[in-house]
Amino acid sequence: MNTQADFARWMSAVQQRTETALGAGLPPASQPPARLHEAMRYAVLGGGKRVRPLLVHAAGHLVEADAERLDRIACAVELIHVYSLVHDDMPCMDDDVLRRGKPTVHVEYDEATALLVGDALQTHAFELLAQGTLAATPAAQLGMVALLASASGSHGMAGGQAIDLAAVGRQLSRAELEFMHIRKTGALIRAAILLGARAGNPLPEANHERLDHYGKQVGLLFQVVDDILDAEADTATLGKTAGKDADHDKPTYVSLLGLGEARAYAEELLADALSTLAPLGPRALYLKALAEFIVRRSF
Amino acid sequence: MNTQADFARWMSAVQQRTETALGAGLPPASQPPARLHEAMRYAVLGGGKRVRPLLVHAAGHLVEADAERLDRIACAVELIHVYSLVHDDMPCMDDDVLRRGKPTVHVEYDEATALLVGDALQTHAFELLAQGTLAATPAAQLGMVALLASASGSHGMAGGQAIDLAAVGRQLSRAELEFMHIRKTGALIRAAILLGARAGNPLPEANHERLDHYGKQVGLLFQVVDDILDAEADTATLGKTAGKDADHDKPTYVSLLGLGEARAYAEELLADALSTLAPLGPRALYLKALAEFIVRRSF
Repeated sequence: MNTQADFARWMSAVQQRTETALGAGLPPASQPPARLHEAMRYAVLGGGKRVRPLLVHAAGHLVEADAERLDRIACAVELIHVYSLVHDDMPCMDDDVLRRGKPTVHVEYDEATALLVGDALQTHAFELLAQGTLAATPAAQLGMVALLASASGSHGMAGGQAIDLAAVGRQLSRAELEFMHIRKTGALIRAAILLGARAGNPLPEANHERLDHYGKQVGLLFQVVDDILDAEADTATLGKTAGKDADHDKPTYVSLLGLGEARAYAEELLADALSTLAPLGPRALYLKALAEFIVRRSF
Repeated sequence: MNTQADFARWMSAVQQRTETALGAGLPPASQPPARLHEAMRYAVLGGGKRVRPLLVHAAGHLVEADAERLDRIACAVELIHVYSLVHDDMPCMDDDVLRRGKPTVHVEYDEATALLVGDALQTHAFELLAQGTLAATPAAQLGMVALLASASGSHGMAGGQAIDLAAVGRQLSRAELEFMHIRKTGALIRAAILLGARAGNPLPEANHERLDHYGKQVGLLFQVVDDILDAEADTATLGKTAGKDADHDKPTYVSLLGLGEARAYAEELLADALSTLAPLGPRALYLKALAEFIVRRSF
């Protein structure tokens, strides 16, 4: 990749094909139960930078994976992400009214519908991943289902949210904060990368480990930048209610380290992620560019 | 099977091994996040007649499936069932305070924890089904994951709940009520039977269809009997708040057909289920006994 413009074009193309794949992969709003299907589509379509789908495609590019396989994997990962947002926004959790610039699902519909939307999106993610051919063998594809489940469950994303809940009003140590974020945001980001990498040519074990380390660093990076943006941004730019974390007295990298040190930590994570990728060769270009993009983003 | 006592012994043995398998299959409460894991175990363990695990084992007996495979499948199906109960009991849904004779999860813990418990139990179900060897081939096992997902999602259980929500305060036709229950309760019951039947010797296609028809009838039967019991029972016997359906002005078979006709419909469904099983031979004994048990139960 020679220019920023090439990366921007690739990113836009992946975002567009992800939107198309999500639209085609979700049940049409015309099918009963229509209101549930409409709300599922409302929650998923027309918003978000699709960071996880981008990571799936970037890792898939490394192993020359079929693009349609990657679309399906990207949809599965994104549906898990969106289900977690829908539930996280509910009054009993973060009680957020705005998401991706639109009213949250429980505001636009109602709480019971938001609950079912999240539930059904999670189920749909596993359904997508279990259908069709996404890996060299059915056994490998079964392993992909297990990987996504493990990243999403009580030892992964849902567990991270539970730790986050328990942390409100407490001051966490840096180790505790890291423990939480490696699960809450990091696990699904890592899974996105590893799933994309399993969809194509087999990767030597050493490179698989590098990719996993890259994923871990990028997951943390994403969260550190999120905390920085949340501390800085105003609601209009972010498309969600800003300053919520501070309002809720939630521990963040900024509250723990201060803004300057949080920024330095982000640069450190980026440098580590990029050097980890170095031995993977030129096909890692989109993974590199994405790590940089995550640091420079303003969303 | 010669006597009622033989069936009672078999049922008790399956219930006990299901309890053991669930206990072993869930994360220990000592693992972080401890509160989430404790609440997951609270939701799942020590209660329920385990109707779906019994159906898994009964169908597995038909095809001489390995009992440990059936345990794992039974756990996956039961976790989906329990997740739906936990979410269904939440204030934004049925707002129930009692389940299986104990305070519901959001009462014993809090709403946010109940939300995450349901989420993580669903994930765990798919994780269990994607791990180990549960079918003759990985491809067949992948099909089992897809089947469970399809039965649980927006075209199955979650969809049925959405239709149920939309029906509060409305009078449904018998066809509409059936459409809802085939999804809300029926889909997972059918899946339990079909999953058990996929874990052993291959079943001729005709018998597979018979089993699916049996599953459909038993699913409806279960709901009709549930409605009858809800209309009749007092809270102490039922272990959950009785009369809730009438309180919420929810359509039921009893409100639609009256108690007498609902009972007659149950007998009709039972007769159909039993005659469907007839050509399957003597190994269908537990499936037959379970259909009868579902009609005669008092829980």
